[in-house]
Amino acid sequence: MIGIFDSGVGGLTVVKEIKKLMPDVPIIYFGDTARLPYGNKSRETIQKYSSEIVDFLKSKGCQTIVIACNSASSVAADYLREKYSELNILDVVSTGARIRRGKAKKVGVIGTTATISSGIYKKKISKLDSNMEVYTQACPLFVPLVEEDWIRRPETKKIVRTYLRELKLKKVDTLLLGCTHYPLLEKIISGVMGKRTKVITSGEKLAEKLRADLRGDSISIVEIESPAEDKYFVSDLKNKNKKLAGMILGKKIKIKKIDL
Amino acid sequence: MIGIFDSGVGGLTVVKEIKKLMPDVPIIYFGDTARLPYGNKSRETIQKYSSEIVDFLKSKGCQTIVIACNSASSVAADYLREKYSELNILDVVSTGARIRRGKAKKVGVIGTTATISSGIYKKKISKLDSNMEVYTQACPLFVPLVEEDWIRRPETKKIVRTYLRELKLKKVDTLLLGCTHYPLLEKIISGVMGKRTKVITSGEKLAEKLRADLRGDSISIVEIESPAEDKYFVSDLKNKNKKLAGMILGKKIKIKKIDL
Repeated sequence: MIGIFDSGVGGLTVVKEIKKLMPDVPIIYFGDTARLPYGNKSRETIQKYSSEIVDFLKSKGCQTIVIACNSASSVAADYLREKYSELNILDVVSTGARIRRGKAKKVGVIGTTATISSGIYKKKISKLDSNMEVYTQACPLFVPLVEEDWIRRPETKKIVRTYLRELKLKKVDTLLLGCTHYPLLEKIISGVMGKRTKVITSGEKLAEKLRADLRGDSISIVEIESPAEDKYFVSDLKNKNKKLAGMILGKKIKIKKIDL
Repeated sequence: MIGIFDSGVGGLTVVKEIKKLMPDVPIIYFGDTARLPYGNKSRETIQKYSSEIVDFLKSKGCQTIVIACNSASSVAADYLREKYSELNILDVVSTGARIRRGKAKKVGVIGTTATISSGIYKKKISKLDSNMEVYTQACPLFVPLVEEDWIRRPETKKIVRTYLRELKLKKVDTLLLGCTHYPLLEKIISGVMGKRTKVITSGEKLAEKLRADLRGDSISIVEIESPAEDKYFVSDLKNKNKKLAGMILGKKIKIKKIDL
């Protein structure tokens, strides 16, 4: 059983990528909608909230935990790995940083203020490939724009242009979307960056790593015969959450509200 | 001792209005920055969070509570008044709705999605003056724009124009800013609405009501000789919170982080 969590329902973009590669792997999702967003909160608070969620997922029998939230990955992943050494904990930042180098010598990373100001992407990418030039940009308004479903608005395009101006001038050849909400703006972002920049998401890179991990397991969860039902939980349930979940997954799901 | 709370530090715009009328009244402020914003959360969750805060303010000796958060005022004020019948509870929505009628026959109210979709301003204003035409508009992006300090940006002006288009067409003669963050955008909003629309804030109307209440009290808190020190608490403390607090109050204050 894979436990996946995010500050909200945005992490379902990661679930979508996982299901693309492994349709039958059973998952339990938790979205902390009662306390979202995490991107503007302190390290200490994000660690506390993340621990509470991991306790919940563990109690549901999850052995593998996916931190689908970039802000939590940035400031709480190492903390959680130390605290829960018995669990296999993957996070979108560590996997997102594994950028394959084709012609790519200049990579851009965008995310929330918490993610970008932590400097973690830059550190991790440079550690894996010290010749890679890394440019980062916080885009704190992207999440509220997606949450408001302003995805096709001219105002949004203007804001995307403003945020990406520097990265465009740097001529990055790869742009990593370091926030679960950003794939919903992928079209506008790709349009603004132009054809020479390849846009990739941290979710697709996480799904690849998860598949590799599971294939290495003695019990191959990918091949179990009667897959368990996927379960979706949130700490606060509103119509907007349901709508966004449907928009991301392209289907209706049952979401249950629970108090942690 | 007056206890004032908001989902974040935005409620300090209400503190500012109170201090303008009553510089010496001692206050305790609580901003729930670990769980903000409230505007996109459910009624049940907002009621739970508000109760926890009122318990805290009560434990600090507050007899009068000011709900500076419009979202909490909209969905939790009556609930809190019933639960804490021993306290005098004022909220920015009930006081904001007392719009004096000059030539004003058409009033516009803007706020977060939670505030506007609750319909409470419309209901309260119509109850006080059934001849008043009330038009409302949710402006969910205003809070993140203020939080990001995009107060003087052309993108912000464009978004303000988009949100206010309908109210401008209705030719409202009064516009009530029904969210604690909006006074920080007052200049842009006034500019977009034009000279014929008077822009008022819910904070200034609350301060007037509070002064009237305190004057009616047997012990006049306004006239105590050695005022207690004001105290400011938040549930999560970041530099951004401190910066916004300073921007609102025009001075540095000591803010203490506590867990509820």
